[in-house]
Amino acid sequence: MKISVLGTEDCWEVVDRTKFGRIACSVDDQPYVVPFNFNVDGKQHLYAFSTVGQKIEWMRKNPLVCVEVEELTSSNDWTTVIILGRYEELRNTPEFERQRIRAHELLSSRPMWWQPAYAAGTTSDRENEEPVYFRINVEKITGHRAESELVQKFFPEGLPKPLQKNDSHGLW
Amino acid sequence: MKISVLGTEDCWEVVDRTKFGRIACSVDDQPYVVPFNFNVDGKQHLYAFSTVGQKIEWMRKNPLVCVEVEELTSSNDWTTVIILGRYEELRNTPEFERQRIRAHELLSSRPMWWQPAYAAGTTSDRENEEPVYFRINVEKITGHRAESELVQKFFPEGLPKPLQKNDSHGLW
Repeated sequence: MKISVLGTEDCWEVVDRTKFGRIACSVDDQPYVVPFNFNVDGKQHLYAFSTVGQKIEWMRKNPLVCVEVEELTSSNDWTTVIILGRYEELRNTPEFERQRIRAHELLSSRPMWWQPAYAAGTTSDRENEEPVYFRINVEKITGHRAESELVQKFFPEGLPKPLQKNDSHGLW
Repeated sequence: MKISVLGTEDCWEVVDRTKFGRIACSVDDQPYVVPFNFNVDGKQHLYAFSTVGQKIEWMRKNPLVCVEVEELTSSNDWTTVIILGRYEELRNTPEFERQRIRAHELLSSRPMWWQPAYAAGTTSDRENEEPVYFRINVEKITGHRAESELVQKFFPEGLPKPLQKNDSHGLW
């Protein structure tokens, strides 16, 4: 198995293909991490949508976040990308109108994009609350890729794209 | 899609079957989240192994962690489990001898268990450092399961186990 450091372009390619990861936030140094769907804009922002819950409440208190994205083929063939960034809520005010329209464009282009975001709400009394649009301003992005000897031998340029996990299967 | 809250037993079943998740830690309220392999002991501890890196250094400073585990079949069929816990390093001293033997037993029974833990080391000069055994003392475990209408109709008791993602495929 060969492990290599990914360049910034390759990191963004993984994030843009996957559009699903886990977002970690923290209050009083208690970390909290949950899965989330997003879409990417301009190699600078991740746009997402959620009902108000612990994640949103905590990011309002402390905007520092970390996002993890992965593509796993086997224990020998995997890619992980780690993003450090900052939460910015796109409030329903004139100031954020342009960014909210952009968020809606980006997120509504994803099949099923709203379902996981609403998941927590359906088991509580939060169903009627207004959803929150937010974006993560990406400040640092790094990644690693592991490739087995078999992949290195037969695909020296890396796995061809159609063999990699992507959104077109309707999977997250 | 129906979303339900998982009971504690069901949460542990998912964690025990998956043995892979993401661990979030935090220092000065900057969260950091990375994938990790583990094994489960007695519905109380997750045992794991790593070279010294940012994750270990940060958990030494602040032992509060959050672990996320998921089983994703599609955007309509998924389970997520969230654990809040506390990092405990199993140091190479007589005090921790029993727990280190237990950690080695549990972790060496996993195929390829050491590879992701060593991944970071192979791209730096940390290869010769002594690995760290640690465990997460689980303080709270919660989970949610989403099931599509198709699954509810044909598998009212839930998806049969062989259809769910598990470690026997050699996947993480």
